[in-house]
Order: sequence, then structure tokens, then C-alpha cells
Amino acid sequence: VNLLEGVKKGDPLSVSRAITAAENGTPEGRTLLDAIAPLVGRALRVGFTGPPGVGKSTTIDALVQVIRSKGERVGVIAVDPTSPFTGGALLGDRIRMGKSTEDAGVFMRSMATRGTTGGLSRATQDAADLLDASGAARILIETVGVGQSEVEIARAADLTIVILSPESGDGIQAMKSGILEIADVVLINKADRTGADKLEHDLRGAFDLRPSRRQADIPILHSEAFRGKGIPELLAGVDAAVAARKENGEFDRRRRENMVRRLRSLAEYMIERDLWAEDGAGGKLVTLAEEVLNHARTSYQAAELLVREALKTR
Amino acid sequence: VNLLEGVKKGDPLSVSRAITAAENGTPEGRTLLDAIAPLVGRALRVGFTGPPGVGKSTTIDALVQVIRSKGERVGVIAVDPTSPFTGGALLGDRIRMGKSTEDAGVFMRSMATRGTTGGLSRATQDAADLLDASGAARILIETVGVGQSEVEIARAADLTIVILSPESGDGIQAMKSGILEIADVVLINKADRTGADKLEHDLRGAFDLRPSRRQADIPILHSEAFRGKGIPELLAGVDAAVAARKENGEFDRRRRENMVRRLRSLAEYMIERDLWAEDGAGGKLVTLAEEVLNHARTSYQAAELLVREALKTR
Repeated sequence: VNLLEGVKKGDPLSVSRAITAAENGTPEGRTLLDAIAPLVGRALRVGFTGPPGVGKSTTIDALVQVIRSKGERVGVIAVDPTSPFTGGALLGDRIRMGKSTEDAGVFMRSMATRGTTGGLSRATQDAADLLDASGAARILIETVGVGQSEVEIARAADLTIVILSPESGDGIQAMKSGILEIADVVLINKADRTGADKLEHDLRGAFDLRPSRRQADIPILHSEAFRGKGIPELLAGVDAAVAARKENGEFDRRRRENMVRRLRSLAEYMIERDLWAEDGAGGKLVTLAEEVLNHARTSYQAAELLVREALKTR
Repeated sequence: VNLLEGVKKGDPLSVSRAITAAENGTPEGRTLLDAIAPLVGRALRVGFTGPPGVGKSTTIDALVQVIRSKGERVGVIAVDPTSPFTGGALLGDRIRMGKSTEDAGVFMRSMATRGTTGGLSRATQDAADLLDASGAARILIETVGVGQSEVEIARAADLTIVILSPESGDGIQAMKSGILEIADVVLINKADRTGADKLEHDLRGAFDLRPSRRQADIPILHSEAFRGKGIPELLAGVDAAVAARKENGEFDRRRRENMVRRLRSLAEYMIERDLWAEDGAGGKLVTLAEEVLNHARTSYQAAELLVREALKTR
């Protein structure tokens, strides 16, 4: 109850502990998430993605300053990439955002990959719910790369901003990787460098070629985040896009779509958690694998047995 | 039965149809997969991955020629990247491998992303089983990028070859992306270009820094696949690595590990297929999402309801 009250009051330590409890899937975490649910849905959630090196952190830091100057509380969730094999975080540079960290109106949290894509996505959305309930008006969700899981997380927001820079073929990479397809706003950062106008031109060309209806009115903004240039305009652009979407119903439609995806992945997470518990079907995996290799069963027969085993325990 | 006999005889059209049936998850596909299971396990499966542009297709084409010159039958499965959002394949350039396609001893198949990572991985492994049963001695599985799903597919082989080129920081990218961690053999293609020796030096340095026991004896080979140079040596390197692994038990251990992963993902696929069928829990998704957004239920309560609903139908 203390933790719940702390979260509701916006106490940073309580929020931090609550996010950890939720992330670890403890019963306390689950109880908290159910308890704060009525308070969830007020904050605007903005996702940021783009290739490494375009200045996502710098942009978000600058944006946080602008939001704070308006007196709004803001939460930042930075989703770190990790090697899928070692589980170790690649980025140790979360000691950043100098100005923001001493400000009680700003809450920051890094989330790292925990095994599965679904797990990270779940943890990120639970953390956003907790920040929402704690009174943050805006929640900025930053993913550090353009892998599919990171793109999934960035698009699970109300609005997704794709950040590019004029350097090193990022534009072409972005078009190829499919991240432009989730962009609601494109920000060309480091816009003072050579190639910014060409990149914008190429992006417009790419958008025009696409049949999808939303591409035509995707704002392409420029910034030099390091100097704070273009960041108030970014915030204004976000607010204008949100207002337009609330007007035409797109905002609610997107929230519904996102919630459908979220419930799907949450249900899958719950089933897999039970399925692979050591005392459940998980304990039979190695034996079954050997049986398949020895032709005592086929792979599909073995998988069916695992499923029946898993479902028996519920 | 005709299709089964065709596959067993190595008839290309039968194999092609069988792979399609398996990919689509039809009852006929399932029956076939169960029927050919006793014949599976004889072929050597080699996975290839690496950043775009390093010459993977050229390398595999050249390798196919060398394998054919020894009289062995070979199957090639090319796993194409697609945008996770449009579902459209990016690569239209599968009209390649000119020499190989007229040779009845070579079977080629492209697989494209079908919704989920798990689905593509399942389809690729089923296709490899069918090729195995059809009498291919070697199955080469090529993934076109270094995304996590592609890496998962490449490592599901008996041996994984990571191809790099000296160009454009591929080495650093490879180290960062984690693909080196799945390399059993590293091939530096385009080895005539500047930087090949430096790349090898950097790779050795990176391997030496790692604690993992296998890194020390990862062969780093050079090739100029376009001219066929270094490709017989690649085949010899693969065969030497396989012989060493069969000797020390690593080969069987790896097959067991791969089968454990395969059964896990197959069981998850089966559950999710039932879970999201329109006439099952899937049909309740939108209503539940709206209830969560209206605070009539929490997200976890809604997901639990979905799980109960799904399991009821089994």
C-alpha cells in the first residue's frame, strides 16, 4: 500500500521500485499494476527510434528541457539493446542527460532486454503505465536501435518519431529497414550538416511513392538538438499532430490497436511462462529433443506433447 | 502418398510442393513431415549470415559449384528479409545463381517472413527436413541480414558461417550486433580489397578478449567468391570443423540444443495458432482492448481471460 501511495504521489523512489517489481513479474508488481490501472491513460506516450548515432538521446534531453519549461512532468524510458546471446547491455552511457537528472519533475528509467522481445515490450509498457499513474504528463520512450523488437516498442506509443541524420546513408537504411513505415513525425537531426535537404527530398519522394494513406501528411522537421535548435518546433509539431488525431478519431483508434497488440503479447507471455517452467513442460524438453533426434517421435508430435503437458497444469 | 514418394526420390517438383504444404501448415504438410521424419538427420546443415552486401549469395553460389564438383546433392534455402509491416519482400533479386539452377543436383528455395519470427524459423527448419529426406547431402541456409530472427535461423544449423567484407565498418557492426558470437567459421569475402588483414586482426583481437571457450579456435578464412577463390578452402574448413566436432561430441550436443529450441518454438507456435484463431480467443481481442481502455478490466486481467478462453477450446 505504501508503494502504491508513493506511486500515486509521484515519489521517484516508489515509482522506481514499482517498475522493478513489475519488471520482475512479482505478485507485488502485479497487484500494483492492477491497482494503478484506473489512473492510466492520461499521459501522452511518444516513441522515438532511429539508427544509432543520430542523436536520439541528445534530442530527448533537449525535448525534456522544453517540456519542463512549460511546467509539465515528464518520464523517459530508454530501452537498451543487448546482444541476444550474452544478455549484456552494450550501452554503458546512460550517465547522460546532466541537467534533467536533478529535476524532480523528470523521471528516467533504462530497460534492458530480458530474454524475450515480448518480455521487454511488456516491461516497457508496464513502466509507462506506472509513470502515467504517477502523474507524468508526457512519457518519452526511446529505443536505441532499429531492430524489429525496438521498432515494435516505439510504435506502441500514441505517436512515433523517427530520428535520422544526414550522415552515412541513414536515410536509405531507414527506408529499407521499414522504420519509416511507423513514423508519424520524422526528425532530421544534425540538420546543419551536408545532405539534410537531400535527405528530406529523398524522404518525401519515398513517402509519395507509397500507397498508404497517412504518408502524405507526415511532418519532416529539422533540428540541431545539441544546440536545442528546432526542439520547441518538434514539441509544437507533436502537439499539432496529436490534436489533429484526436479530432479525426485516429488517436483513439491507435490506442485501441496498440491495446489489442499488447493483450496478445501479454497472453502469450503468460502461457510461455507456464509452459517453460522447470517443473512443468520445460523439464521434459531435453528428453523430447533426444527422442526426436532418435526418431522415436517427430518434432510436431513432441511439440504437441509439450503443449498438452503445459495446459494440464493450468 | 505420391508427394511422399516424390520427396523420397528427390523429385524437385515434389520437394517444392511439399515445402509449400509444410509452410502453409496444411494437414497434408503435417502428414508429410511426420512421414519423412525417419529419413531426417543425415544431411549437414550449414547456416550463413552476415551484413547485406558482403557477397553471401555469390559465396553460396560458388560453394554450390564446388560441392557439385564432388558429386554431392545440395539444397539451398534463402531466407529473405521483409519489412515487418508491409509483409512485402525487399529483395527481388532471387534470379541469380545462373549455373546452379539448371543442375538437377541443386535444389533452391526462398522463404519469406510470414508474420512472426517463429513462423519463419519453423518453415525454414521444416524445409530443411524435407530437403534432408529428399537426399541432399548438404543444406545451405542463407539469411540475408543480421536481425535477431535471421541470426536465430542461421544458428539453428549444425555449423554457422559469418561472412564479412573488409568494407564499410562491417567488422565493427558485426562485433556490436552479436553475430560473431554465433560464428563457427568466419569468412572474409572480397579479401582482395583494402582492409582484409586489418579486419582479421581486429576479429582475432575481439575473439581473444572473450571468455567463451570456443572463440579461440574459430577459423577465419579469406575468399574472393566472385572468382571462386578460397571457396574449396571454405568447404575444406567446414569439413574439418565438422569432423573435429563429431570427434569431441560437440556436433551431437549442438543438434540437441538446436532441437530443444526448435521444440520450444514449435510448441509456442501451436498454442498461438489456437489462441488467435478468429473463432477462439482472437475474436474477443477488440472488445477486451476497449474494456481495458475504459478501465473495466486491467490489462493483466484481460490477458488472463484470453488465456483461459484459449485453453478451454483444447
